[in-house]
Amino acid sequence: MTRKENISELREKLQEIYHLGSALQVLHWDMEVFMPLKGAESRAKTIANLSGILHEKFVSKEFASLLKSAKTKLEAGKLGGVESAIVRELWREFERQKKLPMSFVKEMAQVCSEGHNVWIKAREKSDFKLFLPQLKKIVALKRKEAELVGYKKSPYDALLDTYEPYATSEEISMTFEELKNFLVPFLKKIKDSKNRISSTILKGSFPVEQQKKFDEEVAKKIGFDFEAGRLDTSVHPFSTGFHPNDVRITTRYRKHDLFDSFFGVIHETGHGLYEQGLEAKHFGTPLGESISHGIHESQSRMWENTVARSKSFWKYFFPKLQKQFPDPFGKVKFDDFYRAINFVEPSLIRVEADEVTYSLHIILRFEIEKELIEGSIEVEDLPKIWNAKIEEYLGIKVPNDASGVLQDVHWSGGGIGYFPSYTLGNLYAAQFYNTAKKDILNLEEEIAAGEFSHLREWLRQKIHIHGKMFSADSLVREVTGEPLTSQFFIDYLKEKYGEIYKI
Amino acid sequence: MTRKENISELREKLQEIYHLGSALQVLHWDMEVFMPLKGAESRAKTIANLSGILHEKFVSKEFASLLKSAKTKLEAGKLGGVESAIVRELWREFERQKKLPMSFVKEMAQVCSEGHNVWIKAREKSDFKLFLPQLKKIVALKRKEAELVGYKKSPYDALLDTYEPYATSEEISMTFEELKNFLVPFLKKIKDSKNRISSTILKGSFPVEQQKKFDEEVAKKIGFDFEAGRLDTSVHPFSTGFHPNDVRITTRYRKHDLFDSFFGVIHETGHGLYEQGLEAKHFGTPLGESISHGIHESQSRMWENTVARSKSFWKYFFPKLQKQFPDPFGKVKFDDFYRAINFVEPSLIRVEADEVTYSLHIILRFEIEKELIEGSIEVEDLPKIWNAKIEEYLGIKVPNDASGVLQDVHWSGGGIGYFPSYTLGNLYAAQFYNTAKKDILNLEEEIAAGEFSHLREWLRQKIHIHGKMFSADSLVREVTGEPLTSQFFIDYLKEKYGEIYKI
Repeated sequence: MTRKENISELREKLQEIYHLGSALQVLHWDMEVFMPLKGAESRAKTIANLSGILHEKFVSKEFASLLKSAKTKLEAGKLGGVESAIVRELWREFERQKKLPMSFVKEMAQVCSEGHNVWIKAREKSDFKLFLPQLKKIVALKRKEAELVGYKKSPYDALLDTYEPYATSEEISMTFEELKNFLVPFLKKIKDSKNRISSTILKGSFPVEQQKKFDEEVAKKIGFDFEAGRLDTSVHPFSTGFHPNDVRITTRYRKHDLFDSFFGVIHETGHGLYEQGLEAKHFGTPLGESISHGIHESQSRMWENTVARSKSFWKYFFPKLQKQFPDPFGKVKFDDFYRAINFVEPSLIRVEADEVTYSLHIILRFEIEKELIEGSIEVEDLPKIWNAKIEEYLGIKVPNDASGVLQDVHWSGGGIGYFPSYTLGNLYAAQFYNTAKKDILNLEEEIAAGEFSHLREWLRQKIHIHGKMFSADSLVREVTGEPLTSQFFIDYLKEKYGEIYKI
Repeated sequence: MTRKENISELREKLQEIYHLGSALQVLHWDMEVFMPLKGAESRAKTIANLSGILHEKFVSKEFASLLKSAKTKLEAGKLGGVESAIVRELWREFERQKKLPMSFVKEMAQVCSEGHNVWIKAREKSDFKLFLPQLKKIVALKRKEAELVGYKKSPYDALLDTYEPYATSEEISMTFEELKNFLVPFLKKIKDSKNRISSTILKGSFPVEQQKKFDEEVAKKIGFDFEAGRLDTSVHPFSTGFHPNDVRITTRYRKHDLFDSFFGVIHETGHGLYEQGLEAKHFGTPLGESISHGIHESQSRMWENTVARSKSFWKYFFPKLQKQFPDPFGKVKFDDFYRAINFVEPSLIRVEADEVTYSLHIILRFEIEKELIEGSIEVEDLPKIWNAKIEEYLGIKVPNDASGVLQDVHWSGGGIGYFPSYTLGNLYAAQFYNTAKKDILNLEEEIAAGEFSHLREWLRQKIHIHGKMFSADSLVREVTGEPLTSQFFIDYLKEKYGEIYKI
C-alpha cells in the first residue's frame, strides 16, 4: 500500500467514526433540550449502544492496522504537517481508547446518561442523598478509568487529559495557587472598598420572548451564523457542534433577570463561533476539532467577559438595551449600569459568579475532584467538604445542596476533570486579548462602534482554523509569544476592578 | 448452542440494530423540525453513514449465522409463537436487505436526504424542473432497488412491500377500482346536490399559540402521553417513534385556518397513540414495530375522520372551541359547523382534501407511481400526467407545480410505494370501527361525553400491542372476522354524506 492509499483509507474510516460522533451529539442535544421525561431510559440505551459501536470501530483490528502503519510513516518522517498532526492526535486517542474494554465503555455511557436525569431530580429536591448512589457509581467508574488508562503522578491526570491534552494537575495546581494568592487579598480589598455598587438596578420584568429576541440580535451581531446554528432552551446552558455548519447553543431564561440569559448566550456564542470557525474541509479528522476545553473556554469567556462586560461594548449596545427595555433601563445611567454588570460579591452559584470570585469556585472544585479521584476523600463526604471550602474561600454559608454540591451538571455526566478548563479559559483569554489589542489597531473603538468582524476573524485565523494542529501550550506560545501565565488575567482584573472599586 | 442461547444472542444483536434505528429517527426528526439550513449536507452524510452501519450489522456474517440457525429451528417447529413471529419477520427483512449492496444503501440514503432540501426549494419556487434531476436519481435508484430485490409481476410490488408487507399491487388495484367506481358517481351526486354548504364560517384569525394550546389539549384528552412524546412544527406534518416512551408528532400552523393544524394534529395523534401503544418489552424486535403503514394510517384516519369529524365528537368539543375562539365560533350554529368541517369539494392539495375526494388523490398517485417504476412513463412527464389526471378525476385544473406534482414530501425521500397506505388506512379504519361499535356499548355516547379511553384501549389491545405478530391481512380477519373490503368505507361515506347532502 502506498503512503497516499494508506492515509486516504484511514481518512475514509475516520469519516465513519466522526459521523457516529455527530449522531451521538445530536442524541445528547435532543436529550437535554427536547426529550420528554419518559424517554430517558431508552435514550440512555441508544447512546450507550452508539458509543459502543463508535469505540468498537476506533479500536477495531482494521482501523488499528491502518493507524499503526501511518504511525510508522510518521516516525520515519514520511508525512507532511497536516498528516503528521492527524496521525499524532489519533494515536494519542487510540492509545487511550484501546485500554478501555468495550464493556467498560458501554457501562460508562449508560451510567452517565442515567446520571443526568437522577441529578435533575436530586437538584429539584435539593437532596444530595438522592444523587449519591449514582454519583458513587460514576466516581468508581472514573477511578477505574484512570487505572485503566494509566498515569505518572496522579490518577486525576488521566481524567484531566480528556479535556486538557498534554496538561498535568501539578502545573495547574501551581498556576491556580498563584491566582489564589492574588484573588484572596484582592477580594478582601473589594469587600472593604467604600465604593458601594448596586446591582438591583438591573432587575425588572422581562418577557422571555423579548429576551430571546435581544439575545439573538446580539449573538448575530457578534457573528454567530443562525443559518448554521440554533439557540434553544435547556436546564443547563451548553453548546455543541455536529459540524461547522450545524452548531447548537442553549440558554435558560429568568423572568426577572435579563442578564442571566444574556451573558449565558454571549458565552455560548463564543463557543459557537469556535465550532463554526473550524474548517469544514477538516471535518472527520482531529484538525476539524477544537484543541482543548481550556482553549474553547477562552473563546466563550473572552466574548462574555472581556468583550461583553466592557465599557466599549455597552457604548454600542446600551442605547439598544434601553430602547428594547425602557423599563427599567430608560432611567439608568451608563456608569451605574457598567458598574452593576461588573458587581463583585461572593455568592453560592458558580454560573452566577462575577469575574473575580469565579475562579475561586473553580479552584475549590479542582481541589475536591482531584482528591476524590486520588481517594483521599469519599463521595459521601462531598456536601460537608464543599460547604466548608465555600465558607473558607468565599466567606459564605451553603444553605442547601441545590445551591451547593448539586448545582453543576458535570459530574452527573461523568465530566470529572472538566472544571479546571474554565479558569484556564480565563487565563488564555486575557493572554490572547492582550495580543489581539496589539494586532488590531483601534480594537476598543471598533467594539464601541458595534464592529466585531476583525476580532472574530483574528480569533478564527489565529485559533479556530487550526483545530488540533498544535497543542494548547504551543498555540499560546505561537500566538502570544510566551507560555501561559496568570499574569495577564491578574493585570486585567487589577486594572478593571481597580477602577470600578477605586482600589 | 442451545435454542435459548441462540435466541437470546440474536435478541442482543437486534437491540444494537434497533437502537441504531432509533438514532437514525432522531437525526431525521431533527432534520425536519429544527436543523438549520446549512446543516443539510453534513446531516445527509451522517444519516448515510449510520444507515450503512445499520445495514452492515444486519447483513453481517455473525448476525446472518444467528438468524439462519434460528430459521432452521423455526422450520423444525421448535420455536414458540413470539419467537416464531420474530424470526419470520427478521428473515423476511434479511432476505430483502442482503440483496442490497452496502454501496447501494449508502447512495440511496444520501440521495434521499439531499432530496428533501432540493424538494423544499423547488416547491418554494413552484418549479418542477429544479427537482427533476434529483427525482430522476431517486427514481433510477428505486427502479434498481426493485430489480435487486426481485418481484413476481410488477417491480412496483418490490417497493410496495416496504410499506405493505405481503400485499401486491394487483390486489390493491382491484380494491381501488371498486372504490373509484363508487366515488366518481357519488362525487357527482354531491356536486349536483342542491344542499349548499359554506366552509367560510370556519375562517378567522387564530394566533398560533392559541391554536397550539387547543390542539395539545385535545390530543391529551384523546390520550396522547406528553410525558412520552412531543408536538412540534415542521414543513410537512409527520410522526415518528424512537421508542414507545418517546414519540414525536409535528404539525404546521396557518393563521386563518385553525382546522388545517387541528385535524393534522389529531391525525398524527392517531399515529402517536399506535407508537405509544406498542409494547416496550418488545422494543428491539419486530413485535415492537407497527404492522404496516396501512394499519398505521387506519389509526390516524380513524381518529382524524371517523372520530374527530363526527357529530358525537363535537358535541363535547364544540363548546370548548367556542370558548377558546369566540370569534368567529360564538355565533356559529352546531349543525352549520358540523356540515362545514365535512364540506366536500374537489381541490388540488391532497392533505387538504375531504374524506370523499381524498381517495381519488391517492388512486392517481398510485397509478402514476406504478407506471413510473414499471417504466411506462418517465420522470420528465410527471407534471403533464399529473395535471391531466387531476382534471380527469376531480374536474379541476392545476395552476402550478407547487399545487400539483410538487406538493408531497414522499418522493423526495424515496418514499415510492407509500401512497396506497393512506387509502388502505381509510378502508381498515371503517372496518375496524364497525367492529369497535359492536364491542363497545354506547361508543358514540362515550365520545359525546369526552370519554375516549375505551376506544383507545380497544385499539391498543386489538392492534397496537401485537406489533408485527400477524400480517395485516390476518389481523383484519382476526379483529373483524372477515378480510379487508372497501364495503365498510363505502357504507360509511354513503350514510354520513347521504345525510349531509341529502342524497
